[in-house]
Parts: sequence; C-alpha cells; structure tokens
Amino acid sequence: MNKIPANQLHDFSYKIFKCIGCNDEEANLASDVLISADLRGVDSHGLARLSGYIRLYEKDRLNPKPNIRIIHETPSTAVVDGDKGLGLVVAPKAMEIAIEKAEKVGSGWVAIKNSNHFGIAGYHAMMALAHDMIGLSMTNASPLVAPTFSRERLLGTNPIAVAIPADKQPPYVADFATTTAANGKLEILQRKNEDAPAGWIQTSEGNDSRNPNELKNGGALLPLGSDRDHGSHKGYCLGSIVDILSAVLSGANFGPWAPPFVSFLPMPEDPVGEGLGHFVGTWRIDAFRPKEEFKRNMDIWIERFRMAKTTKGQQRVLVPGDPEREFEFDRRENGIPILDKVLRDLTELGEKHGVPFQL
Amino acid sequence: MNKIPANQLHDFSYKIFKCIGCNDEEANLASDVLISADLRGVDSHGLARLSGYIRLYEKDRLNPKPNIRIIHETPSTAVVDGDKGLGLVVAPKAMEIAIEKAEKVGSGWVAIKNSNHFGIAGYHAMMALAHDMIGLSMTNASPLVAPTFSRERLLGTNPIAVAIPADKQPPYVADFATTTAANGKLEILQRKNEDAPAGWIQTSEGNDSRNPNELKNGGALLPLGSDRDHGSHKGYCLGSIVDILSAVLSGANFGPWAPPFVSFLPMPEDPVGEGLGHFVGTWRIDAFRPKEEFKRNMDIWIERFRMAKTTKGQQRVLVPGDPEREFEFDRRENGIPILDKVLRDLTELGEKHGVPFQL
Repeated sequence: MNKIPANQLHDFSYKIFKCIGCNDEEANLASDVLISADLRGVDSHGLARLSGYIRLYEKDRLNPKPNIRIIHETPSTAVVDGDKGLGLVVAPKAMEIAIEKAEKVGSGWVAIKNSNHFGIAGYHAMMALAHDMIGLSMTNASPLVAPTFSRERLLGTNPIAVAIPADKQPPYVADFATTTAANGKLEILQRKNEDAPAGWIQTSEGNDSRNPNELKNGGALLPLGSDRDHGSHKGYCLGSIVDILSAVLSGANFGPWAPPFVSFLPMPEDPVGEGLGHFVGTWRIDAFRPKEEFKRNMDIWIERFRMAKTTKGQQRVLVPGDPEREFEFDRRENGIPILDKVLRDLTELGEKHGVPFQL
Repeated sequence: MNKIPANQLHDFSYKIFKCIGCNDEEANLASDVLISADLRGVDSHGLARLSGYIRLYEKDRLNPKPNIRIIHETPSTAVVDGDKGLGLVVAPKAMEIAIEKAEKVGSGWVAIKNSNHFGIAGYHAMMALAHDMIGLSMTNASPLVAPTFSRERLLGTNPIAVAIPADKQPPYVADFATTTAANGKLEILQRKNEDAPAGWIQTSEGNDSRNPNELKNGGALLPLGSDRDHGSHKGYCLGSIVDILSAVLSGANFGPWAPPFVSFLPMPEDPVGEGLGHFVGTWRIDAFRPKEEFKRNMDIWIERFRMAKTTKGQQRVLVPGDPEREFEFDRRENGIPILDKVLRDLTELGEKHGVPFQL
C-alpha cells in the first residue's frame, strides 16, 4: 500500500476543488475536512470520496460557489440554507455560527438544509473544542437502513458526533453511525470477499443476510442493536432523531427522500424539502460551571474509564476518540495509506482536470 | 392480576409523599411522573418504585423539602442544584426553566446536580410538546453497565428521551435505555425464571451470560450493540455522553460514583460530585421554521414510516411512542395492572404510614 504525506493529499484535493470553481478558502476547508478523515482512520470518508463529490458537481447537484446564508435565527438558533454547496464547507460554516451564538448566550444550534454530504461528523463537532465548548454534529444521508420490522430502507446511516474538552487528557470524541455497522465496513468485506457477521444486514425481504453485497440487491443495513431482542428499535430511534433534527427541522429532504450520495442513482421523486440536512451545535462549558473544574473532572472521568479492568484477551478499555487519535499520530508521521483502487481513481481524476497526482 | 384506576394509585402515591413531608404541589407532581410510567407501560418506573423512594428518605438520602435553585445561568443555559430532592420533582422544575429560556432565546438547557432518580425520562421530554418545542431529557444512574472490553460496571442504563410534536399525528416520543436491554427486562425474566437472550449480560469476569440474576454476582448489563462486532462501542458512547452531560457538566457524581437507587447499597466512597445528575432541554420549533410547516412535515414523516412494508410475520412498522400511547389508551380506560408482589409492597407501605391502600 502506498503511504502519502497528508499535505500532498491536501494539496491535490485543494487543486481539484479549485478546478470546479471553489474559491481558495472553501477549497482549503473542504480539503481539511476530507484529509482529517484519512488522518483519523475513517478512510471511507476521506480522499476516497473526492471523485464522488466531483461527480455530484458534474450532475449539477453541487454548487461550487454557494451563497451560504442564515434564513432564520434567534439568539441561540439558526437555519442555514447551504445553496447546494459542499457539505464539507457548509457544515463548518454553520458550526462557526453555532459557536458565535454560544459565546453570546451559552449555546448555539444550527439546522442546515440544501446541503450535500458533509464528510466525517467528528470534524465539525471538534471545532467546538478550541472554544472550550461541547460540540455536537449529525447529518441525514442516503436511505440504506431499514427501521425495525421494515423491509424498506427509510433512513441513512445518520451519524452522531460529540466532542468534549478535557484538561491534561486529550478530548473525548465520539463519532459513530447509528447502524450496527457503517457502510464502509461492508466495503472492506467486499474487497476481501468475506462474509459479514450476522446482524448487520437484511435481504430485500427482510431476512438475515451475511452477504456484504446485499445492499445492491435491495437489502438494507440494520439499526444499531441488529434485531428487536437486542434493541434495534433504539438504533431506529437514534437514526430517526438524527433525520428529524437534520432534515425536518431545517426543511431538507428527510427519510427515504434524502438524496443519494452516488451521482448515478436518480434523485427521489416528489422531494419533501431541499437537499440534504445537517444539525450542529454547541454548549459553552462555562455557561454551566467553571471550565477548569469541568475539565479536571473530565480528566478524572477519562482516567477512570481508561484504567478499567478488562475482559479476557483485551489489553485496555478505550475512551471514545482514542483509536482515531492514535491513527492520526501515526499517519501524520508516516503518511496516509492509499489503496491501489483509490490511487487509480485519484490519478484519473487528476488527469481529467490537469492536476497531476504524484506519489 | 389486579387492575386499579390511575387516579386511585395517584391518590395513594400523593398521600405517601405527603407523609414524608413533601408539600401539596410536589407530592402531586411526583405522583404524576410515577403514574405516567404505569400508564405508558413502563411498569419498572411506576408505583412499583414508590417504596424505594421512601427508603431513600428513611436513609436520609432524600430531602422532602428541597430548595431547588439555579446556581449559575446564561440566557440559554442553567445549572440547578436539586438539594437532594426527589428527581421526580427536580427534573420537571428544571424542564420548566429550560422551556422559559427557549421561549426567550430559542433553546434552553439545564444540567442538574444533587438530585435522585427522576422516574421515566419521557415525562420530562414530553413537557416540551405543549409549547411546540422539541424536548430532550437524560439522566445518569447506578453503575450496572460495563463499557466495551471492561469487566467493571462504570455506567448506568442512562436513558435518553426525545419528544417531537406533530400536527394531526400524535407526537414522536423516543425513550430508551442506552443498554441492549433495560434492567426492568431482567426483572421480568427473573420472575418468570427464564434465561436472557445472549448479548444482554456478562459475568463478573466479562464472559457471556444468560442468567438474569447475573448482576447479583457482580455481572454487568451490556451497552446497546452487545459486543464490539455489533457496535457495543456505540452504546458505550451513548451511555457515556449521557453520563458526562448529566453529571460532569452539572457537578454531580459521574461514572462508577453515581449513587445507587437501592437504599441497602452503600454510597460510593470519595464522591466526585453531589448526588445524581440529569440533563434536560428544549429547542423551540419556530426558532427554526414556522411551526405549522414543521408539524405538517412531521405528519408526512410519521405516516411514511408507519406505512412501510413489513418484514415477514410483522403487522406494522412502529413510530417511536406508538406502543406507550397504546398502553396509555388502554390503561386509562381499564386501569393499571399491579402485580401481586407490588400490591403487597404498597399495602405494607400504606400500613406503615397510616394510608390504607384499597383495591
């Protein structure tokens, strides 16, 4: 596998976004979000998706020069119209608005409509950390998930990210799809030609399946919990809360009307809103208690959980954010591994736009 | 099984809370919260718990005349000190503060410390509905749950409730423990002398167990997802987010320091905060978009999900809140079924306090 320095990938991504008409600042910001996924080990949401975003532009589903604007607001809330822009740009700008509001009134909440795929949720939530705030971000997504007892795919993998600052310890960062397994995990199994564990997928008829290609046959991902006995109705609750906050509250397309990320799929008929929706927000720590006190308690929390006695065969109990931080430490040092398939895709994309992709 | 009218149970509960020194209003409110659990079919959090609250009072862990007060606030946030009061009273009062703040600035968030068990989470979240707001409530709880890879119990079942208004459709109400199965489900299996499904519980050594009494041997409930392959790290994220918002943000006891509900267990040593913590809040719908538009879209959302094609053998796809509403419809009409064991417990409690419990 080829390992490529992050700044080189960033430079390539920046140039490609410039080619489709993004301005300097936004090409940079979008690249930051993508590369942060690669650095943190969330390979499915990094550079591997770059050509997907460009295809959305080619299908006229993505506006490279969006007029991202607040269409309604109160002291602690706003709705932002993303003007069909890159979610990679729209979401961080919305998060900046949330942070400004939290500086003034203690918390800030922004629902976003008319956007596109926003990359990794964790990036946006983590923007709050530098301001000593707790950050929250979520998004709806292409319908691939069947609610409990449903044969139909009505929800996306609808991730939630929460970032919480600590003192001497690194921050707590949870970032997870509300399904048993994210779609990226199926892609890994497809490449390896391996079966999926039971409880990840169902067929188009709603029967259990272990075929990682089942979604191509109309099958569905299962909500976190897998089945009713193991709490899939709770995963369904989580995915639907994300859908409603992201898309019903903002005026975007919700449920099965969420536009697909892949450009070859048709847009759902009779849209119920505009584009994809996100929801981001922050609570300012010292709007509750002195931030030094809070952060010292977070250190105690983190240290207690990390030193928990482990089950047999396990080395340690992780704190949310630990694996991604370790990936980032390694990949900043040693480069980002890029699969051959992604490498070919990027090379091709570069050739098309006259931006050489060099190893 | 005996079925008893809700108002009769309410009256009994009210009189018992009066006996320990609660004032009229608070005895009423606490009884409202308890009976609402029984009405909604969440039997583990209703009258069956009344004697548990009274035992906390007898152990001097519950203050029947609390001075519930805001100790810090901003326009959209507050921290409330529950003064060792009943969570059944403290949480609704905190929710009222959140609603007032949302009326003024669009959203309101209250972290609560120094409280006790707050009953069903759904009650507090649903208070937002009458104000055309989205309500959120959560609480930390006695440590019974082992994080992924941990042998130690470091989290409670830490429930989350979200209530969202609709137009002609009844509201969306999600209310769930962040574990695979709530503790109440184990109690049902214990009574029936049946095994638990795999994936609910582990032994004190961290091995799988199907013994519903395993927690008495030092075993633990598992986070939603059951094991690493099925996303238990996501359930661990959810439970820990609830713990941090409820207890670290407010200054209550977090993680394994959360005080036990049962009065016979000792309080954890070296407390890291005061009492139990909750977190409640609201987003005002029209702080985002016109509430009529939002509610009409919620109707479309609910109708679409409810009419989804079902998997084999299932009659229908439920919308969160459907089962509880159906329970309530039936139980308001036909009374609340009370188990013999609970009946004996209540009769005994009544005798002790000179409040006859009549069928």
